[in-house]
Amino acid sequence: MIQTPTLIIDEDKCRANIRAMAEKARRNDVIFRPHFKTHQSHEIGSWFKDEGVDRITTSSLTMAAYFSKAGWKDITVAFPANILEIELINQLAQSIVLNIVVESLETIHGLDNNLKENINIYIKLDLGYHRTGIAPEKEELISEMMEAIDVSQHMTMKGFLGHAGHSYAATNQSEVARVHCESTRLIVETRNKYVEQFPNLLVSVGDTPTCSVIEDFRMVDEIRPGNFVFYDLTQMHIGSCTAPQIAVALACPVVAIHAQRNEIIIYGGGVHFSKDTLDHREYGNIFGLAAEDNGESWGDLLDNVVLRKISQEHGTIQAPSSYIDLINVGDVIKILPVHSCMAADLFSTYHLSSGKVISRLTH
Amino acid sequence: MIQTPTLIIDEDKCRANIRAMAEKARRNDVIFRPHFKTHQSHEIGSWFKDEGVDRITTSSLTMAAYFSKAGWKDITVAFPANILEIELINQLAQSIVLNIVVESLETIHGLDNNLKENINIYIKLDLGYHRTGIAPEKEELISEMMEAIDVSQHMTMKGFLGHAGHSYAATNQSEVARVHCESTRLIVETRNKYVEQFPNLLVSVGDTPTCSVIEDFRMVDEIRPGNFVFYDLTQMHIGSCTAPQIAVALACPVVAIHAQRNEIIIYGGGVHFSKDTLDHREYGNIFGLAAEDNGESWGDLLDNVVLRKISQEHGTIQAPSSYIDLINVGDVIKILPVHSCMAADLFSTYHLSSGKVISRLTH
Repeated sequence: MIQTPTLIIDEDKCRANIRAMAEKARRNDVIFRPHFKTHQSHEIGSWFKDEGVDRITTSSLTMAAYFSKAGWKDITVAFPANILEIELINQLAQSIVLNIVVESLETIHGLDNNLKENINIYIKLDLGYHRTGIAPEKEELISEMMEAIDVSQHMTMKGFLGHAGHSYAATNQSEVARVHCESTRLIVETRNKYVEQFPNLLVSVGDTPTCSVIEDFRMVDEIRPGNFVFYDLTQMHIGSCTAPQIAVALACPVVAIHAQRNEIIIYGGGVHFSKDTLDHREYGNIFGLAAEDNGESWGDLLDNVVLRKISQEHGTIQAPSSYIDLINVGDVIKILPVHSCMAADLFSTYHLSSGKVISRLTH
Repeated sequence: MIQTPTLIIDEDKCRANIRAMAEKARRNDVIFRPHFKTHQSHEIGSWFKDEGVDRITTSSLTMAAYFSKAGWKDITVAFPANILEIELINQLAQSIVLNIVVESLETIHGLDNNLKENINIYIKLDLGYHRTGIAPEKEELISEMMEAIDVSQHMTMKGFLGHAGHSYAATNQSEVARVHCESTRLIVETRNKYVEQFPNLLVSVGDTPTCSVIEDFRMVDEIRPGNFVFYDLTQMHIGSCTAPQIAVALACPVVAIHAQRNEIIIYGGGVHFSKDTLDHREYGNIFGLAAEDNGESWGDLLDNVVLRKISQEHGTIQAPSSYIDLINVGDVIKILPVHSCMAADLFSTYHLSSGKVISRLTH
């Protein structure tokens, strides 16, 4: 029985999300290398194995080490290489195919001077998101980096990697499609410039909005979406998923009711949901939306039952009187989160709707 | 040596913050019942014991259980009682003085029907923050609740508890003082109404802004500040502390440098800092400010070296060219957080500036 804020995963929905993306990758004949930063769980990783997945992405070396312990043998760390962790890089490279992302000559030299094992290298390109990566027009720098990788003893130049994170700013599918077309064109053109000298260069892309909305990925070699495993309200808002595809909810005890101001106080705050907000068309700035409780899982979104404010452990739900009249202190409300990656990161265990409790990487 | 994002505590600063608040409580002859939700660590708890503290506040029963294991015998859970955790309430009440906060008759009845051990009750008053608590003008409801507590077998009506959380909206010390005066007047007046029937009722208040700024607390019986143990940029912005009093920093590896757009990418994101922002006078919306690195600890804030954007693991620092010219991939930058409670909650261990690693409650 739920007593404290609990993250619940609907296994059927989650497996359906995994299956749909795996099938899309197969139809396109591209490598499906899902990003595991969203779930960070051995058990959920095994659901990907059930769909034939054998290559994964993580956002840290720590996370790569965690998944290597569950038997994953080919891992891309899609984060600029942190040369301070060279020991862990060497250690992982002993037992798995380790793919590392670089975006500067300094990092390549830092790796080259300290590597004892072989690793694959992807050069990170900035496809318009302007967070990390090299602008594709910096051809001289890219050439110099590829040369440095090529002459190194332990590094193999494997391809180009991009993350069109600006797809998250989209609010409809055609905007997502535009981001996809532009970013894919950029990365494929860059690859084509170097393909004579390096004939086997791969192109790796993939964020959940584009991988969910776009059907044709035949121009690229690999996709790396992550969030789709759970989806969330942000993805629904972008148009990547529908509400019934969202596979995660937070079950939160009701601790107080302020009917006069149409508010319910839940045990469930920033340390459970994170503080990511969504600017919702109807409700303005929100932290979550409540769904019908149908026992072990949840049903449709409830009209106008909105998580409006959170502090460390408190959440304030705004709801119509007709809903508040049905709620008592000691009830549990199920709430779909704005950003499932960040919420999941705040729990050390997940409860499956079957009742089973599974563990995940803890910090 | 730091390899990944690390939370560092300057023990001297932290102990000085504890000492100053303990002395202020002694000068005012009020009970000092610090809120431990900020640090959530047995070791840091012991620094409070060194200052003579023997009563504490937590924000959850789980946290109360954690601290009871370290020998704390008198704990107030300053969160509306979650009756779903009645088992843990009974269990804790067997071995410690457990003070529980209520704000409805439903909760009082829920407790009364299931309590097997004795607990103390505080009624939560809404002193103007409008998150939880009963409006002081609801005299009939308050009387009814006090009667229900009085006739119950296992509950003792102990006093009124308030949290003037709207002090966090202040941007200078005189605004904090105004919040303090109004909220203290409200809670003391409420207590005075019932003092004939309940002569020993206590008044418990305390948030870090008012407890830091105000000198005179003789009107109340108890203060419960929490954040002051570390302080942070939000408190500095309010005027509760100065930069040198901030006792916590996040040490983050540099993984990329984009000199053309004056940006440094650090390994350190929303899963380390949380996503709380501060609307800084000079820099707009920020997630942190970098400080001089002086080896094990840190020195003054650096001019214009600002954490402007964060995603899950990435942070983007904006800095002048004169600073960027000195920074290399593989360096570590020390950054003071916007909200230390939320950042600390994201780490399972803290590194003291002495080098010692201490643990904390994990979820």
